[in-house]
Amino acid sequence: MSQVVKTTGRLFGVGLGPGDPELLTVKAVRIIETADVIAFFAKAGRLGNAHGIAERWIPEAAEQMPLYYPVTTEIPVSHPDYNRQLKQFYEGAAEEIAKKLAAGRDVAILSEGDPLLYGSFMHLYIRLKDRFPVTIVPGVSGMAGCWSAAGEAMAWGDDVLTVLPGTLPPEALAEKLARTDAAVIMKIGKNFAKIREVLRHSGHYDRALYVERGTMAGEKIMPLKDKPDDVAPYFAIILISGRGRRP
Amino acid sequence: MSQVVKTTGRLFGVGLGPGDPELLTVKAVRIIETADVIAFFAKAGRLGNAHGIAERWIPEAAEQMPLYYPVTTEIPVSHPDYNRQLKQFYEGAAEEIAKKLAAGRDVAILSEGDPLLYGSFMHLYIRLKDRFPVTIVPGVSGMAGCWSAAGEAMAWGDDVLTVLPGTLPPEALAEKLARTDAAVIMKIGKNFAKIREVLRHSGHYDRALYVERGTMAGEKIMPLKDKPDDVAPYFAIILISGRGRRP
Repeated sequence: MSQVVKTTGRLFGVGLGPGDPELLTVKAVRIIETADVIAFFAKAGRLGNAHGIAERWIPEAAEQMPLYYPVTTEIPVSHPDYNRQLKQFYEGAAEEIAKKLAAGRDVAILSEGDPLLYGSFMHLYIRLKDRFPVTIVPGVSGMAGCWSAAGEAMAWGDDVLTVLPGTLPPEALAEKLARTDAAVIMKIGKNFAKIREVLRHSGHYDRALYVERGTMAGEKIMPLKDKPDDVAPYFAIILISGRGRRP
Repeated sequence: MSQVVKTTGRLFGVGLGPGDPELLTVKAVRIIETADVIAFFAKAGRLGNAHGIAERWIPEAAEQMPLYYPVTTEIPVSHPDYNRQLKQFYEGAAEEIAKKLAAGRDVAILSEGDPLLYGSFMHLYIRLKDRFPVTIVPGVSGMAGCWSAAGEAMAWGDDVLTVLPGTLPPEALAEKLARTDAAVIMKIGKNFAKIREVLRHSGHYDRALYVERGTMAGEKIMPLKDKPDDVAPYFAIILISGRGRRP
């Protein structure tokens, strides 16, 4: 009497943390070391940031599966082509991964920061989660890496903490900053001058911190008011810590 | 010719993540394994949650230093005695730790979740950071552990994410929920009935998730609307995921 149980592989969304390879969790390392396939997003022709963070943990025998973004900053996100091309890309990538899973192979998708917080992983996840077993391994968020590197205690007691994309129009940014105790502003890049102008009138300017490449080589941390220019990478962030209850 | 260099110890704020001991970072494990003194908060007479999460990584030779809260939920936070007793406690604990550091011993303070996000560690940190060298090891936040356990993709594209303490008055909660795309509500406990009532009128009720003990034994996850009673521990949380750009 014999029984053949056909099983699919398992999909893992693996948070890599903010950039320092030592900030992967023990669980993330275990899964990267044992998965059959390691998938990761990258710009065409590069191995990319996620791969760089996880590299020391990826076994030689693992199948590596780069997922090359068709566009990154060449087309504005508001352009219909951006959405169309990305949709096609995510659908294609999800199908490639589905084939591996259907063949019984475990696939780990590397995800900078935390997989379910503004992660590209989520676009594959929603296309695969009802078809295959999934395990999410949470990661240290990029912003937590930044406030730790800056030594900035972010939220206290009953503080409200708001995470704001710097892409918001100035009026929306100003309104939301006026109604929070602590804030993280992400997606700085070309939005920097606008964000700084809003912060100047917000009452938060003097304690705002600018952080670039937190926990990584080339890390830069300074009070925002000391930053001499408005040039910043997209992934720089601005931190405004709360002032809540401190016995 | 000989030179004696007297150095103090180093203070580490070590994030333990949301509860699963495998969700410590590689760096957190390394520091716990090599620190001279392991300090941790607990209720009097107990070893406490933080110690339980880190236990497997604490070497036998390490000096263990429990810091017993004088009060937890016996006195309301609004009572003047609460503030006075906690202030005295944090000052005393900081001085005990300062003595170890001054004697050249490295002290790791265990911190559930992330050390600089609503952590008790911060009360010691602000009392010691200008006197001793400090390293912060960021951790996976409790909320990230909860949304990963729930498989809930929290924030997309340009979503605004707001972290709200459930202790806020209902009007403030309602107003802030009306102005965010995604939200995490913490500190549920006795505030549960009030929070649920606000959420019922917020437009977010149908997609709100209730999570108790995320990533730990006894984990409970359910749609908020399916939770039959308003009984919840203080550390339960409610998640409302965003609906941002999804190519």
